[in-house]
Amino acid sequence: MNLLNTVTVDEAKNKIKDVFSDVKLKEEKVHLLEAVNRYLSQDIVAPIHVPGFHRSTVDGYAVIARDTFGSSENIPSFLRYRGKIEMGMEATEFIGSGECYYVPTGGMLPMGCDAVVMVEYTEVLGREICIQKPVSPWENILKKGEDLRQKDLLFKKGHRLRPQDIGMLAGLGIIDIPVYEKLSVSIISTGDELVPPTKKLNLGQIHDMNTYSLSAAAEADGCCIIERVIIEDEKEGLQSKIEECIAHSHIILISGGSSAGDKDYTKEVMDRIGMPGAFIHGISVKPGKPTIVGKVKGRAIFGLPGQPVSALIVYKILVSSWIKETLYGAEVIHPSIEGTISVNIPSAPGREHYVMVSIKEEAGQTIIDPIYGKSGMLSMMAKAQGYIKIHTNTEGILKGDSVRAFLL
Amino acid sequence: MNLLNTVTVDEAKNKIKDVFSDVKLKEEKVHLLEAVNRYLSQDIVAPIHVPGFHRSTVDGYAVIARDTFGSSENIPSFLRYRGKIEMGMEATEFIGSGECYYVPTGGMLPMGCDAVVMVEYTEVLGREICIQKPVSPWENILKKGEDLRQKDLLFKKGHRLRPQDIGMLAGLGIIDIPVYEKLSVSIISTGDELVPPTKKLNLGQIHDMNTYSLSAAAEADGCCIIERVIIEDEKEGLQSKIEECIAHSHIILISGGSSAGDKDYTKEVMDRIGMPGAFIHGISVKPGKPTIVGKVKGRAIFGLPGQPVSALIVYKILVSSWIKETLYGAEVIHPSIEGTISVNIPSAPGREHYVMVSIKEEAGQTIIDPIYGKSGMLSMMAKAQGYIKIHTNTEGILKGDSVRAFLL
Repeated sequence: MNLLNTVTVDEAKNKIKDVFSDVKLKEEKVHLLEAVNRYLSQDIVAPIHVPGFHRSTVDGYAVIARDTFGSSENIPSFLRYRGKIEMGMEATEFIGSGECYYVPTGGMLPMGCDAVVMVEYTEVLGREICIQKPVSPWENILKKGEDLRQKDLLFKKGHRLRPQDIGMLAGLGIIDIPVYEKLSVSIISTGDELVPPTKKLNLGQIHDMNTYSLSAAAEADGCCIIERVIIEDEKEGLQSKIEECIAHSHIILISGGSSAGDKDYTKEVMDRIGMPGAFIHGISVKPGKPTIVGKVKGRAIFGLPGQPVSALIVYKILVSSWIKETLYGAEVIHPSIEGTISVNIPSAPGREHYVMVSIKEEAGQTIIDPIYGKSGMLSMMAKAQGYIKIHTNTEGILKGDSVRAFLL
Repeated sequence: MNLLNTVTVDEAKNKIKDVFSDVKLKEEKVHLLEAVNRYLSQDIVAPIHVPGFHRSTVDGYAVIARDTFGSSENIPSFLRYRGKIEMGMEATEFIGSGECYYVPTGGMLPMGCDAVVMVEYTEVLGREICIQKPVSPWENILKKGEDLRQKDLLFKKGHRLRPQDIGMLAGLGIIDIPVYEKLSVSIISTGDELVPPTKKLNLGQIHDMNTYSLSAAAEADGCCIIERVIIEDEKEGLQSKIEECIAHSHIILISGGSSAGDKDYTKEVMDRIGMPGAFIHGISVKPGKPTIVGKVKGRAIFGLPGQPVSALIVYKILVSSWIKETLYGAEVIHPSIEGTISVNIPSAPGREHYVMVSIKEEAGQTIIDPIYGKSGMLSMMAKAQGYIKIHTNTEGILKGDSVRAFLL
């Protein structure tokens, strides 16, 4: 049995960044309605001034501000009513001293006006409008280009488009959105004991979980799953499957066979296919120590542990963050929640330790409970709402400590 | 101009729950690979014991624990090697006193054994295995049904399936997943000034944003968008469009026309179509006060403000939470991040106040900055990474206060 030559999580992350710094993603254009959750491949700048005209932010009367100075409920000003600006129409009217036009919220202002008095502070008296409150110049007006000037940067390259961003782009009339191609991912589960969930189990067999959980996780990160396959622990089969996947995948995830046991072929096969082969074997993290990262024919191959919980944790901390932050170049805020840990959690220094947790609200406090279980227990995954990270250089955390749980 | 008869956000939420307590969602079955982000319509219980057999959690030797008692590196025990259990095969072997079998991680245990010694604490000496460390009974074994017993509850009805849950279900061999139908949502933007983003603007016009941002938001919540349409501020058009949408939508979102101005027809039209019509008009929230909620022919109609930021906030606090928590019955953890607010934010008591914020990390601290802008500025939406909530009964928050920003 060979020993693993472990690196820290941060070393692994940096090495992965370096080794794959030559990966360039293609761009494509997608329709706005297909663009949510895609990553921008170009900066988006405003193609037009927004608003494109001086616009009222209230329902009221467009006026010349100085005509209202000094007015009050007791001593109102009186302005001649010249008419109504219609929503959506160009206002070609010109306002003179002592005059006003009714203008709805969002309506274009007539020329010459420099403020809008809210309808609440006015009264209609025949052909005159009685103004009961003064307005300052430019009050209740959104000026042309005040929201966005043409060429203002709106979204940076790499930004992942959220629902509200789709609205923004619509507002700017941008319909064809430049995004990065979806990364192609192939997922291989290795193990003689694995059978697909569609088949009945014999004794000694288990249903494959990892192609399912990993493909759903990679899809959530904006990848496209090319292949999902179970293969036996057998060198030739693994090699030909990897070679097949290399042809059409940016990333290949292999679960199982990543340790240093006598049936753990992933590293050997990776090295055999091409240079540089495996460049990381073993990460000082719990769970997830037996992890392999390699580069073969320009493609990234991750050998993840076979245990479903470990495979998912390593995917999250190593693969997912690399995909989103480096390959797509997104700024990621990892959703998390602060809470109080309910028990002591000891941890051996010298490795990062990830603990699955459940989260509950109790008397206005957020309580975070670790979920324990034996290696490979899948019920842990169902119960876990998140995980906490115990840093390399600590001996654990104490009951009552404030911790941040990252949501799963 | 009519005044709104406002209710608090909580009152509105409770009223919506009550009025629509008769809404029943249909169930459907989807394939596991299509089930991510869907909401379960039934509890899921384990159909089988997991594992289905006593399983080793390590690579090592299956033994009778008492045969190892007292062994150490200096005084090891010697056990007769009987052979190797193959992964994925039923172990029909029987272990006798003084004997052992090699068993890989995940392998089935031979009958009669009650512990596994990790390979690290053994040495092979011809046909004998030298055991250098004792094991307790059931050490390194996951017993049949120890992870999950048949009929154990795995996921509650209403649970929204995450990537890892898809893996779990695969592990249990559950392929046809009972989920709630997707709620059908139609979205109507009203306003004479609105043109679709595909068209060039004339002066006075703006591009419609709300059908885009609201449909992307509703899709993210697990809804299916039936219709997206812009219509003019005109009673008959609005009425016939709503009537058309009622036929095939659970929920109709109408943005614009929700206030009490002379072109705000949403409430009147709702009331005209059927009973009970609008039952909420005005919510004490900023932004979002001019909000209407009605029930017509059993369908839910929300009249949201026309301002994109307000429309989205009201969607989030009123519609999205009702959809997820009540209609689908999910337990929702709203992703959030704790941080320190960078400035004082005054707020008028008597209403809930939602402020868009950006979030940054600075010297290890999370700093939350409010984003200000005039009503209707769309650039605010691009900059906002989240929002904070200032409660009804406070006069604001102070610089340096710890606040929770909910991610957008």
